[in-house]
Amino acid sequence: MSVITVERKILQKNDEVAAENRARFKENRLFTLNLVSSPGSGKTTLLERILEILAGQVRISVVEGDVQTDNDAQRIAKYNVPVVQIITNGACHLEAKLVQDAVASLPLEHTDILVIENVGNLVCPASYDLGEDLKVVLFSTAEGDDKPLKYPKMFRVADVCIINKIDLLPYIEFDMAKARENALNINPGLTIFEVSAKTGEGIDEWIEWLRKEAQRRR
Amino acid sequence: MSVITVERKILQKNDEVAAENRARFKENRLFTLNLVSSPGSGKTTLLERILEILAGQVRISVVEGDVQTDNDAQRIAKYNVPVVQIITNGACHLEAKLVQDAVASLPLEHTDILVIENVGNLVCPASYDLGEDLKVVLFSTAEGDDKPLKYPKMFRVADVCIINKIDLLPYIEFDMAKARENALNINPGLTIFEVSAKTGEGIDEWIEWLRKEAQRRR
Repeated sequence: MSVITVERKILQKNDEVAAENRARFKENRLFTLNLVSSPGSGKTTLLERILEILAGQVRISVVEGDVQTDNDAQRIAKYNVPVVQIITNGACHLEAKLVQDAVASLPLEHTDILVIENVGNLVCPASYDLGEDLKVVLFSTAEGDDKPLKYPKMFRVADVCIINKIDLLPYIEFDMAKARENALNINPGLTIFEVSAKTGEGIDEWIEWLRKEAQRRR
Repeated sequence: MSVITVERKILQKNDEVAAENRARFKENRLFTLNLVSSPGSGKTTLLERILEILAGQVRISVVEGDVQTDNDAQRIAKYNVPVVQIITNGACHLEAKLVQDAVASLPLEHTDILVIENVGNLVCPASYDLGEDLKVVLFSTAEGDDKPLKYPKMFRVADVCIINKIDLLPYIEFDMAKARENALNINPGLTIFEVSAKTGEGIDEWIEWLRKEAQRRR
């Protein structure tokens, strides 16, 4: 029982810091995304597409979360946007406090959209609010159309679901109608996009939606 | 600091129960695998290939671990092997105690190989010994050749690394030499297999190795 109590306390404390983050983001008129997925679903590649398309129109800053390596921050730095890397050193998710510390070195007052790329994990990050406006869950067609049913909490707390790697559809067994049905059964409020971050297919529609949502909510 | 202490206590307790499991498995002359990977890397499909090939030669029992649903146990039950499903109901990994309780309903005395399929998560299960002889980490080519570097702990504690979905190699960017190098940089003792659990390519070599290892160690 003591474990559960400690976990509740951790989550409660996290929610408090997330609320502080949210207030700070609002103060700076930021629109904030929390990108979550399994390892290798394509979060960083999706972010690269966002940066390519919105560069020069919208000011984007990035927080990269990884268990180890700053490879992702290095990939993102090539796009000449402010980026800070959090290395969790074993921890399986980002927490609000880590994000709070990380954004201290970002020019929030000169940022329109803040993208936080979480640690690759379809379970633990579901419990940790970071203060974001939108939780975006990705999964790739290679992972199978049953993922929303098997990891329901993440799909329940997400606002947007991006099904990535649709370029692989001819080579794998993946029922898109079933995948959408599974996701909507878990969370009927999900907005779903089908994309290939690699080829760019479907990306425009998602970015257009994102741009409008950011304008509407800021 | 209290959090760390509690976590240490949890891990210490887990190690004690894992030692009990290990003693019990040894007593029954079982060879035990702990299959770990991200969601959708192909653990269950790999297990299906093992069951198809070894059926009638080796007696296999299965423990399925999932956050939610008993879909995997249902898939495995078709192979007429004893199977028990653990639903962790939100928890991101199996613990030794869950396995201890689960195997109580399996015919261990009539089992040669026990396969434990862990929750899909490349981070948390790395810290929890279940009493297994062999930790087998899978990752799929669709996830990218950098996964060992980004999730090093799992590759450090594993004995075998299976690179799955090699049938997708023509359609994706994945450098197999780099992937092997990354894995061996993290853990030079890893035995690596390249397979497609879907088409069966490379499976025979892995199963033959498994069969010999099980004989040698029992």
